Amino acid sequence: MAYDYDIVVIGAGGGGLTAAIGAAGIGARVILIEGEKLGGDCTHYGCIPSKALIKAAHIAHASNEREKVGLSSMSDTDCDVHAVLAHVRNVVADIENRFEDPEEIKRNGVDIEMGFARFVNSHTVEVNGKNISGKKIVIATGARPADLPIKGLASVNPKTNRTIFEADTFKSLTIIGSGPIGCELGQAFARLGVAVNIITRDEVVLGRDEKEAGEIVDRSLKSDGINIFYKSEVREVFVRDGKKVVTIKNDTEDKSQEIIADEILVAVGRQPNVENLCLEKAGVEYDVRKGIQVNEKTQTTVTHIYAVGDVATPWKFTHYANHMGKVALTNIIFHIPAKMSKVIPRATFTAPEVASIGISTQDNVFDPKSHYVFDKGYDFVDRAITDVAQEGFFRIITNRKGLIVGATIVGGPAGEMINEIALAMQNNISITKLSDTIHAYPTYSYGLRNCADQFRAKSYSARKKNLVKNIFGLRG
Amino acid sequence: MAYDYDIVVIGAGGGGLTAAIGAAGIGARVILIEGEKLGGDCTHYGCIPSKALIKAAHIAHASNEREKVGLSSMSDTDCDVHAVLAHVRNVVADIENRFEDPEEIKRNGVDIEMGFARFVNSHTVEVNGKNISGKKIVIATGARPADLPIKGLASVNPKTNRTIFEADTFKSLTIIGSGPIGCELGQAFARLGVAVNIITRDEVVLGRDEKEAGEIVDRSLKSDGINIFYKSEVREVFVRDGKKVVTIKNDTEDKSQEIIADEILVAVGRQPNVENLCLEKAGVEYDVRKGIQVNEKTQTTVTHIYAVGDVATPWKFTHYANHMGKVALTNIIFHIPAKMSKVIPRATFTAPEVASIGISTQDNVFDPKSHYVFDKGYDFVDRAITDVAQEGFFRIITNRKGLIVGATIVGGPAGEMINEIALAMQNNISITKLSDTIHAYPTYSYGLRNCADQFRAKSYSARKKNLVKNIFGLRG
Repeated sequence: MAYDYDIVVIGAGGGGLTAAIGAAGIGARVILIEGEKLGGDCTHYGCIPSKALIKAAHIAHASNEREKVGLSSMSDTDCDVHAVLAHVRNVVADIENRFEDPEEIKRNGVDIEMGFARFVNSHTVEVNGKNISGKKIVIATGARPADLPIKGLASVNPKTNRTIFEADTFKSLTIIGSGPIGCELGQAFARLGVAVNIITRDEVVLGRDEKEAGEIVDRSLKSDGINIFYKSEVREVFVRDGKKVVTIKNDTEDKSQEIIADEILVAVGRQPNVENLCLEKAGVEYDVRKGIQVNEKTQTTVTHIYAVGDVATPWKFTHYANHMGKVALTNIIFHIPAKMSKVIPRATFTAPEVASIGISTQDNVFDPKSHYVFDKGYDFVDRAITDVAQEGFFRIITNRKGLIVGATIVGGPAGEMINEIALAMQNNISITKLSDTIHAYPTYSYGLRNCADQFRAKSYSARKKNLVKNIFGLRG
Repeated sequence: MAYDYDIVVIGAGGGGLTAAIGAAGIGARVILIEGEKLGGDCTHYGCIPSKALIKAAHIAHASNEREKVGLSSMSDTDCDVHAVLAHVRNVVADIENRFEDPEEIKRNGVDIEMGFARFVNSHTVEVNGKNISGKKIVIATGARPADLPIKGLASVNPKTNRTIFEADTFKSLTIIGSGPIGCELGQAFARLGVAVNIITRDEVVLGRDEKEAGEIVDRSLKSDGINIFYKSEVREVFVRDGKKVVTIKNDTEDKSQEIIADEILVAVGRQPNVENLCLEKAGVEYDVRKGIQVNEKTQTTVTHIYAVGDVATPWKFTHYANHMGKVALTNIIFHIPAKMSKVIPRATFTAPEVASIGISTQDNVFDPKSHYVFDKGYDFVDRAITDVAQEGFFRIITNRKGLIVGATIVGGPAGEMINEIALAMQNNISITKLSDTIHAYPTYSYGLRNCADQFRAKSYSARKKNLVKNIFGLRG
């Protein structure tokens, strides 16, 4: 049977673009179908605009750091959120024009069809009234902010990561959720002069990370003037006198409290885009909350249909979508049984940055009997001291043989350093080998190496000390 | 024969401290002899004060970056170099008190003797009129700024990295030399409001790095207002009207030129501290320019005497001194034949940062027939775009099998990322394995991974494209 295309890719975010452009580059006939914008959430509503905003906040914040390095103080004038958001949108447009230009993608050999795809059967989708068939199909439709069942929320038109960067301006912001998005954006807006409130169910922000990491970020957010409401549940949202009011109830207290701001940002949860694909027609199994079920080769329950990225994994990261796209590509094109890696670094770009990989000491699989934990605080990291930035730490968790099974880094370029750990874990480089690799001084990652040095010190047992005594001759 | 100590270590800089504390920790009897300050050049005159200064300059410079991210401009008031240098000295004192406290070192089991050591014979040195003998001796006396044979220079009391941080204040500075020290300090002082001149014999700064790296730093230094005098030789130095005048002659022009400033910083060359050790008495061979000759185990020509750090290597880095200290320690203590690694990362902390490892395309050993070069400009690195910092690039050089033999990184946290490359090179992780390791997005090192992706694309030959055609069925 002849198909219109070798591969039909549905969704042009990180995962879909990787699969489509990669496959076309190796000579496959590929069509990419996108219902909204080429580039997906990451470019338009995620990593790109948030990092541009964070850079602006970082520059704005530098004026607060002057006195601690001997510079005269400099009072920041009121920040213009409107102008900064315009800058953020320019950055997004720049990236879009450069990397997600449809003409450029077509020149790479990928056909593009703008529109929403629905399955007709397991080899065919319908878009804009046309049927398009493929020998293989890759679903990469991503995820969207979850709808929260909070009374009144929908009617106040709350912002999400999809709409906040399109805002005009605001003086105050209430954020529901203290995960990476809530903390990153909350801190950035606070540093740009916005009065920020964060409402969280947890006792500490960044609840999925090591508690010590969240505590450091917690202190930092507070020093940026953010009000954090812990262990709180949102009861109701409404508008009063043009302001958006959130009523919360604290777990431990009986009274409720009103939090008032110009805008509300919902930063809790993401749900997979599965509903409108007519997956039943193709026989692809899915769950509206968990998304499309895939095996470790990214295959769905229909073997010639693959799913990659946020629609098919709880690890909703651009880099993981990209990885899944590569895995799908390898399986489809080369019939090499590639599998998804479980070595997945994660980074939150607060100040200080938090990055982690593998297990933490809070995980159920962590076992003090079979794991070693090596910590090093930034008060012992030379570069952190010269940077007057001693709030942070390295934590490396290994098995008894010295293979790294997890790590958390707080402070400095944590998001960069976690990738060195990823390289070690992915390639079975032991902590001893990391410790024996010369690292440039004075860098933060030299401190990471110092942290790794502790494994060997642990192995300097009494037996080895006796060896030394024997070498140098017995003494009392 | 009984010795006073198992190990006598001469010099308490990076190399000596590593060897002494390490050996004591494993039970050896150790004495550490230091003629000046515990901590050595790095703590007092090198990495530590320069990085503290650079951090201050970075914060001062942020006010210049405001407009490019949509923030209102903010005019920096005149910087107070005096106050910043006081901050720098505080950081040095902090590090010294914390990590080079003699009492703490003694608690680690190391005896300390302050004074200059001279060899009496190959097992004995004399310090403060006392003879101290050791079964093994480690020489770690470091290096100092080279004396330049320039007419009048000595008489104007020029600053070096040993004295510049002790200065009171100055409004203008002429730097002789455009290597890492000249560029780092020149840029930092320029960003702190000092009028800086750099005089160099080269056509571009950072002459030992890839030319493209030097060119980027060159542009950055100029945009910070630094006057750079290329291909110039210093003829004479003198004082006129309280100012320090440097007369230079440009290679290509016939006329000479006067450069006038409050202070002069000599940042050219370092020479090993070998002269006063009476090495002849021990039979240790050395060269006044190249230092003490060692084999790959850090052994001198006298097998029980080792030499580590700047006194014994052209790679005058704290991290290499530390590594050599570890190597000496391993050889001495465990009789395991440890060898010095040749995988040595190097970083220059200008803005943008420059870091490199292994070979460059300018090296004699670089061979376009047997090496591949993979470049990726920061205009294609998402994080650099969101940071409005697109001046930079990755360059990875591999052999035909994909093993990395060199790399240069300019921009972002280059000094951190080079350590990931070091890990790969030291442990024979191929560029393909680096490319297959998931890197957190959006980081700079995700861009490094993207750069590495190019190796595989190179291997997508016509043969593989045919394979794809066969898989999907032949077509025209």
